[in-house]
Amino acid sequence: MNAVHNVMETAVRDLLDQQWENLSISCHCEMCKLDVYALSLNRLKPRYVRDQSGSMYAKASLMTTQARATILTAITESAKVVSAYPHH
Amino acid sequence: MNAVHNVMETAVRDLLDQQWENLSISCHCEMCKLDVYALSLNRLKPRYVRDQSGSMYAKASLMTTQARATILTAITESAKVVSAYPHH
Repeated sequence: MNAVHNVMETAVRDLLDQQWENLSISCHCEMCKLDVYALSLNRLKPRYVRDQSGSMYAKASLMTTQARATILTAITESAKVVSAYPHH
Repeated sequence: MNAVHNVMETAVRDLLDQQWENLSISCHCEMCKLDVYALSLNRLKPRYVRDQSGSMYAKASLMTTQARATILTAITESAKVVSAYPHH
């Protein structure tokens, strides 16, 4: 039974992909990107839904300007942490 | 890039599997179980880690009596919600 997923993952990944090149971070390697991704997800409230169920409502709620601003703040803060304490 | 995962998922799934039969819930079908699973994960702080990185520390921190009690509380509360508002 692993038929649930966190729609926040897609929302953070999309925004991170869009903003990665503009992000103020000491290293732009793939490993640091994954660290920023994981850290951002840990700072945001999860939105798990059943795989079969319509996750459209949950997804739509993450597309508002407010939700995107909250996610971008989490990404920026996480980038600061990864810059200060890179894993490599 | 989907190389991160929430170790909380395994912790909740394990405890839910162990306790499912004893849980006070109006319906014990697989769909309701997944709803309890998703809802419990939404109530708990996520613990995302990079797939390649050692997630042992994060996993160990979820095996303490305190962590298990917190997870079990989330499961019990979620079971109440799913009992009151089943999705089918």
